[in-house]
Amino acid sequence: MRTAFFPGTFDPVTLGHVDVVRRAAALFDKLIVAVAVNTSKEPMFSLEKRVEMLKRTCSGIANAEVISFEGLLVDAIEKYGVVTVVRGLRAISDFEYEFQMAMMNREINAKFETVFLMPSPQYSFVSSRMIKEIVSLGGDVSPFVPGIVMDEMGARR
Amino acid sequence: MRTAFFPGTFDPVTLGHVDVVRRAAALFDKLIVAVAVNTSKEPMFSLEKRVEMLKRTCSGIANAEVISFEGLLVDAIEKYGVVTVVRGLRAISDFEYEFQMAMMNREINAKFETVFLMPSPQYSFVSSRMIKEIVSLGGDVSPFVPGIVMDEMGARR
Amino acid sequence: MRTAFFPGTFDPVTLGHVDVVRRAAALFDKLIVAVAVNTSKEPMFSLEKRVEMLKRTCSGIANAEVISFEGLLVDAIEKYGVVTVVRGLRAISDFEYEFQMAMMNREINAKFETVFLMPSPQYSFVSSRMIKEIVSLGGDVSPFVPGIVMDEMGARR
Amino acid sequence: MRTAFFPGTFDPVTLGHVDVVRRAAALFDKLIVAVAVNTSKEPMFSLEKRVEMLKRTCSGIANAEVISFEGLLVDAIEKYGVVTVVRGLRAISDFEYEFQMAMMNREINAKFETVFLMPSPQYSFVSSRMIKEIVSLGGDVSPFVPGIVMDEMGARR
Amino acid sequence: MRTAFFPGTFDPVTLGHVDVVRRAAALFDKLIVAVAVNTSKEPMFSLEKRVEMLKRTCSGIANAEVISFEGLLVDAIEKYGVVTVVRGLRAISDFEYEFQMAMMNREINAKFETVFLMPSPQYSFVSSRMIKEIVSLGGDVSPFVPGIVMDEMGARR
Amino acid sequence: MRTAFFPGTFDPVTLGHVDVVRRAAALFDKLIVAVAVNTSKEPMFSLEKRVEMLKRTCSGIANAEVISFEGLLVDAIEKYGVVTVVRGLRAISDFEYEFQMAMMNREINAKFETVFLMPSPQYSFVSSRMIKEIVSLGGDVSPFVPGIVMDEMGARR
Repeated sequence: MRTAFFPGTFDPVTLGHVDVVRRAAALFDKLIVAVAVNTSKEPMFSLEKRVEMLKRTCSGIANAEVISFEGLLVDAIEKYGVVTVVRGLRAISDFEYEFQMAMMNREINAKFETVFLMPSPQYSFVSSRMIKEIVSLGGDVSPFVPGIVMDEMGARR
Repeated sequence: MRTAFFPGTFDPVTLGHVDVVRRAAALFDKLIVAVAVNTSKEPMFSLEKRVEMLKRTCSGIANAEVISFEGLLVDAIEKYGVVTVVRGLRAISDFEYEFQMAMMNREINAKFETVFLMPSPQYSFVSSRMIKEIVSLGGDVSPFVPGIVMDEMGARR
Repeated sequence: MRTAFFPGTFDPVTLGHVDVVRRAAALFDKLIVAVAVNTSKEPMFSLEKRVEMLKRTCSGIANAEVISFEGLLVDAIEKYGVVTVVRGLRAISDFEYEFQMAMMNREINAKFETVFLMPSPQYSFVSSRMIKEIVSLGGDVSPFVPGIVMDEMGARR
Repeated sequence: MRTAFFPGTFDPVTLGHVDVVRRAAALFDKLIVAVAVNTSKEPMFSLEKRVEMLKRTCSGIANAEVISFEGLLVDAIEKYGVVTVVRGLRAISDFEYEFQMAMMNREINAKFETVFLMPSPQYSFVSSRMIKEIVSLGGDVSPFVPGIVMDEMGARR
Repeated sequence: MRTAFFPGTFDPVTLGHVDVVRRAAALFDKLIVAVAVNTSKEPMFSLEKRVEMLKRTCSGIANAEVISFEGLLVDAIEKYGVVTVVRGLRAISDFEYEFQMAMMNREINAKFETVFLMPSPQYSFVSSRMIKEIVSLGGDVSPFVPGIVMDEMGARR
Repeated sequence: MRTAFFPGTFDPVTLGHVDVVRRAAALFDKLIVAVAVNTSKEPMFSLEKRVEMLKRTCSGIANAEVISFEGLLVDAIEKYGVVTVVRGLRAISDFEYEFQMAMMNREINAKFETVFLMPSPQYSFVSSRMIKEIVSLGGDVSPFVPGIVMDEMGARR
């Protein structure tokens, strides 16, 4: 059985993330969607809430499992017997950062592999960071996030 | 009448900005130069001061109007009946960020259009962020900013 | 009256081109779509055919005019009293080439201005060159080109 | 069973290609290495020779199969029941071209998926095109290609 | 005598930095390795410690001298009679930032020259920032830094 | 004595090339400007003419020597006892190609070093290829090339 690992902060989960989850789940026997502790000072949602929202968002994808995740990626891939890490690739600046991270991880653990998937064009420009900016200015982000995220934001007010 | 909108923090306004204002004003009936609230903790100049300096800098460009601006860009373009947002394009990293922002804005409001202009080569490397770095180290930024900015900085000491 | 100029080989015209024509025509009083002589040895369509197809494709856009075009861009903008050249911006490699060309043209004629527009995401990856590759391998390019191009290709067989 | 598809001209196969084959074969049940007809006028090796060299190079990788391949990629993935195309990612310019091709293919066939793998850093700069340049100038390419390619080139002289 | 200047925060010094020092020292009569005050709030090592570690790391390179450095780069090159600044070039995002900085410095002082060197591929993905991230998560960075850095980190615990 | 090597086809030499020659000559004891045989089918100027024009253009730079050059760069640097190859860096696409070439050369000969210099912003967009395009369309390239190139082109007609 081949397990892939899709790490991220998912703060919040976007339709671009969901697109990558769906694509990656079709390529491997199991996909672990791993929500990382957000080290930034002001996360939009708590770790627990982010895990919960992802679980509900991915509930229809049978071989996807959502976990929370702390520490080094190289340790996690050992623990879960992962064959590859999965990353969505949006843009040039992404590519550079992802490449650096993947290479350093591979140097630490030669078994470390990363595959990059492309989201659909309509999601290729969606980023959690910009969603947070739009929300902070009172804008509507419903075209970019699953309904469950909209519900949670509504419940807060 | 076609109105274009050039948003930015302009903290401080640079000769590169002025170059873009001049070029954009020649292409549209009216150009609104819109100074955004700077969300970073330590702006170099207050919003009022930035508006004032831009007004004096652009006083010779008849169809340019300087305003201050808060909230979502998509709301502003509705309010002012704007046909397009204008952005200067300096470098690759610019391009990626601008592209993402423009695409997300267009998704929120299909009428949202962005045109990119190129500043003259001698200004293609000038950025407000670097100007702040140089000033913080006691350096001379007179080759990069209008005289009015130099005057304001001198008045502060 | 402000006239913009959208030059290209349009061999063949794509839905991405049409998207840019529509967006640019909304920003200026008049848009000249200028079909350049294709210097490559094996054009897919003759200059006349390309002009004809573009004319029919753009017939619903009142302020767009299709012409054929030879020689230097800087001469054409003088001749037609153009305020700016318009280019669609797809990708990084595009950006570099376009930037170089625009800068050299501006050096030759200081009045030379270029604005870059972004096509819709669903067209952001469409290129005439790839369409030619797909056609040469017997593939279906109907998702990428106007119906008139499909008709012309069918008529040839 | 999940089958992946690694297309290329492999003219000649490089150690970078071999690195990608090895990595991809570990992620899927079967990897089809598909040698495309080289449309350039002067291939270094014939299609048959390229297939033969790849077969010998990959003989130690049990689940890799080498075939020759003509026509559209989207047709090949249907024919072979492929879940994803595999591509090595070397550099920015690669990324742009690969992205465009993958997106157009996905538009033609929604099932079309592409994953990008990173070769080891020591192979990240190796390209078949530069190998051909070096060979044409009488240089030694043994650090970049499998021994079998060196043998073939020696036999020619 | 020609002196080159290699500025950085070196927090911590990496094997990539050492590789660049070695390469640059071979090209000029003297190489000044200049440790800048780290303006970020939480440096990993103090300025003194960073200078000390670099001195020990570079002790075998006869014409390299390690100093600490404050203020503007353009002032330092005057003070030390430097013919050129040296920078390692890792990636696209580096390139953009470095280009901007070099151009603005040259505008301030026309004598300002920058040459870019490429580190070996195995170090091309190593960055101080990522090393700090890995250390903060309890990871092993010994493949990326000189032994002296590992010793210092061990002594801290 | 340290010798640097600036290879190129220089077809034709541009003011950007001259800018790089001037900058590089100030950094090394000797600069060899090496005109490569142009492998493209239709060179603008013969190898002899290109060498002659470069010699006249560089006659005021005491430590620059112009030669013609055939074969592998790695062989040339051995023959002339070169410490480093010099390249001008204009843009992203340049960077990628240059990086690949430099890395492959270094793999062939570990002594192979390359330094990249930045031309002045006003020349950062000038390329020989675009100059040829402009000339073929009857345009004026006098802002981009030395007077000697203009003279030669005039003499031809």
